[in-house]
Amino acid sequence: MKKKIGVVMAFKAIVVDIDGTITYSDRRIDCRAVTALRSLQVPVVIATGNVLCVARAVAKLLGTSGIVIAENGGVVECGIVESDASHMKECMDALEILKQHFPLERLDPEARITEIGLRRNFDVKEATKLLGKNAPVDIMDTGFAIHIKSKKINKGTGLKRIAKLMGLDARDFVAIGDSPNDIEMIKAAGLGVAVGNAHPELKKAAGMVTKGEHGAGVEEALGELKRRGEIN
Amino acid sequence: MKKKIGVVMAFKAIVVDIDGTITYSDRRIDCRAVTALRSLQVPVVIATGNVLCVARAVAKLLGTSGIVIAENGGVVECGIVESDASHMKECMDALEILKQHFPLERLDPEARITEIGLRRNFDVKEATKLLGKNAPVDIMDTGFAIHIKSKKINKGTGLKRIAKLMGLDARDFVAIGDSPNDIEMIKAAGLGVAVGNAHPELKKAAGMVTKGEHGAGVEEALGELKRRGEIN
Repeated sequence: MKKKIGVVMAFKAIVVDIDGTITYSDRRIDCRAVTALRSLQVPVVIATGNVLCVARAVAKLLGTSGIVIAENGGVVECGIVESDASHMKECMDALEILKQHFPLERLDPEARITEIGLRRNFDVKEATKLLGKNAPVDIMDTGFAIHIKSKKINKGTGLKRIAKLMGLDARDFVAIGDSPNDIEMIKAAGLGVAVGNAHPELKKAAGMVTKGEHGAGVEEALGELKRRGEIN
Repeated sequence: MKKKIGVVMAFKAIVVDIDGTITYSDRRIDCRAVTALRSLQVPVVIATGNVLCVARAVAKLLGTSGIVIAENGGVVECGIVESDASHMKECMDALEILKQHFPLERLDPEARITEIGLRRNFDVKEATKLLGKNAPVDIMDTGFAIHIKSKKINKGTGLKRIAKLMGLDARDFVAIGDSPNDIEMIKAAGLGVAVGNAHPELKKAAGMVTKGEHGAGVEEALGELKRRGEIN
């Protein structure tokens, strides 16, 4: 007698970056991504370098699960909010040094609790050199803002944390992104997808690179995974 | 000789509510509204009972002007942020009274600076009666949250304020909404539009009521105004 096998999907959830991935380069939402993500039955987790308030707003507008990764992994929410505010001190120390050399302008200082967001008006390479390679923080340019963040935190650690809260493993996720700050996340996931407009570094790390850019890339990747029967 | 007359549009800007107007009832963004608003050449101002952070995020996702009215008129932003935080004390006094009678749950207490947002888990009529008719605050149910706010503040006062910052008059605006908390705004505007799903009170106050609901209503109103040559 044949063994009866239930249909087991390869992936149980999606995690997706906001800026540049489900938006155009100017941060306008790409409705093709909205439609594609809404067609899924699995939970859709939003992962962003932005603050929790923005991550929540986007989750609500998309109509996704309301499970989010904010501040590049420093803050996660799945029913409860967990954050690594302890890393802020290292960031503030770095800020004090950089302030003496660059005209820094902080973004959302009142809302950002685990890392520092800065306007893109200074040279990241020069700033990184100034801090030295033993610095406990990274200076990261996402193309939308410059972030000073603990080397111990990234969207990959955020994904692992949120997966645990959801009773899943990071490998159960398909991760979709466009920027170098998505690398750890797409590496931690079961499948990493880089949209067509992604940074070359991210494309190199990804298991799937779409032809379509922004929302069209999200649509293309999810369509392909559905055809393969790997996601619902 | 005939007098040469330049084409003067009746309206110079749009102000539009978020929840229920450009979103469905469950707060998911309605892409029909997104497309319709993006087709305009005039500034599009977002007006919401939500906090500034959410208003800004929605403006960015829509790709509108970044000019916003938040907290039901208590906070406006047009380059600079103006807020009436002085009214918070009256709200807190009312909260203290209501707390003794209802299991109140505040929303965004850290981000909301001019009024109080509460979960919809208590009887607004009973609460209003408790405070008495001479209370300096309104208790308002938008269908998405209950707000305690100064009687001196509403989306209409917010619109007047933002119009001034933009060098316009409130009468230069078309205002679109769905809820009773949009009444003062659509009355202050040159033309008030109620989308098809709007509250009967708002429909009564509006100069135009659309057949379409939510985003379809926004699309319908803007299409009609363009055909009439009243907006660009």
